[in-house]
Amino acid sequence: MGEKEEVKLLGVWYSPYAIRPKIALRLKSVDYDYVEENLFGSKSELLLKSNPVHKKVPVLLHNNKPIVESLNIVEYIDETWNSSAPSILPSHPYDRALARFWSDFVDNKWFPALRMAAITKSEDAKAKAMEEVEEGLLQLEDAFVSISKGKPFFGGEAIGFMDICFGSFVVLLKAREKFKAEKLLDESKTPSLCKWADRFLSDETVKNVAPEIEKVAEFLQELEVRAQSAASRS
Amino acid sequence: MGEKEEVKLLGVWYSPYAIRPKIALRLKSVDYDYVEENLFGSKSELLLKSNPVHKKVPVLLHNNKPIVESLNIVEYIDETWNSSAPSILPSHPYDRALARFWSDFVDNKWFPALRMAAITKSEDAKAKAMEEVEEGLLQLEDAFVSISKGKPFFGGEAIGFMDICFGSFVVLLKAREKFKAEKLLDESKTPSLCKWADRFLSDETVKNVAPEIEKVAEFLQELEVRAQSAASRS
Repeated sequence: MGEKEEVKLLGVWYSPYAIRPKIALRLKSVDYDYVEENLFGSKSELLLKSNPVHKKVPVLLHNNKPIVESLNIVEYIDETWNSSAPSILPSHPYDRALARFWSDFVDNKWFPALRMAAITKSEDAKAKAMEEVEEGLLQLEDAFVSISKGKPFFGGEAIGFMDICFGSFVVLLKAREKFKAEKLLDESKTPSLCKWADRFLSDETVKNVAPEIEKVAEFLQELEVRAQSAASRS
Repeated sequence: MGEKEEVKLLGVWYSPYAIRPKIALRLKSVDYDYVEENLFGSKSELLLKSNPVHKKVPVLLHNNKPIVESLNIVEYIDETWNSSAPSILPSHPYDRALARFWSDFVDNKWFPALRMAAITKSEDAKAKAMEEVEEGLLQLEDAFVSISKGKPFFGGEAIGFMDICFGSFVVLLKAREKFKAEKLLDESKTPSLCKWADRFLSDETVKNVAPEIEKVAEFLQELEVRAQSAASRS
């Protein structure tokens, strides 16, 4: 595409959503500039201009054209650098539909339940949300067994679309395990997902871009302390 | 694909989501069997078996393999019958990313606000939701002007992905106008969207599959009466 190719990614280091384009860009061997945003300070003008609707990271700027929403960015990367590496989405339309379905399930059903469990003050709502999270993990265990067909990843022999989507939350789950008395990925309930999660975190591409679990755990703890002290002031 | 090609669609006649695969199948000249579900009675075994996670219509069964979630189905149809007609999604990755972004905006931000406005009992929540709906329409007006570049549809000269996504709600908006004192698509605020909506409803493909606005208006009114009498009993 000539010498003028400019690729820039706006993200924050701890965001599961920002990990996704990082993995995809690395899978496709695309060089890019990374800009760390500060969501606790004021958002950069570039972020506000590039994503005026949601004002969120990640944003990919390709030759100054903004692409937003993490999975949308991953599809864009897959379609744009389509000769650089194997396809991130499966090649058959039915398998693509399955990958999109389960990714949508993770982002719009499973993770919202986990977030609700983390932020609600009501013990009842928390218990109900955690039930949904655990039920969702059982459904994802079945999906993994059926989609991977005995291979290491949702994508088969290598990391694919659904691995990137769900895998981006594995760091968060492991970090929560470190500072909470919870074990969401439980070998007795979701044995295949547990093995998949370890394989995902050990993958060379992922290791190079995922934040350290220890650091994310400290950050989550800090957030909780901040939220509690804000609540005690109000 | 040989003689054994079997295509079946499960839907309900008034559902905006079920209109989407109908338009896509017609654009691709695919023959299919249509099965009307009764969501007020008991859901069919075929529906429950085909969509065990969400238990919702529409479901497309292609040679007995289920594909669920309306936009996912539209992408599947586009990719499977890719030689039957022009592509439903744009051909350039950046334009595809825009179509996916705005479709996600419609389904996960704009329409949830409209639904909230319709079902909430709180006047404050209703007013806040209607503000979001109107703000969203202004954003969609800008998106239409920028994406269509003077052509009749989001998809250019012909109906595309985003036309199918947002257009499926136009019947609902027009039906609400008939039985409520509201005019969401207002020519003074969103002139381009208003013209686009009329063009969409006059399109031959759409006319053949969209339900009659009058009939949907009667149905919405019936739903409201039912909801009110249920509320007065409780």
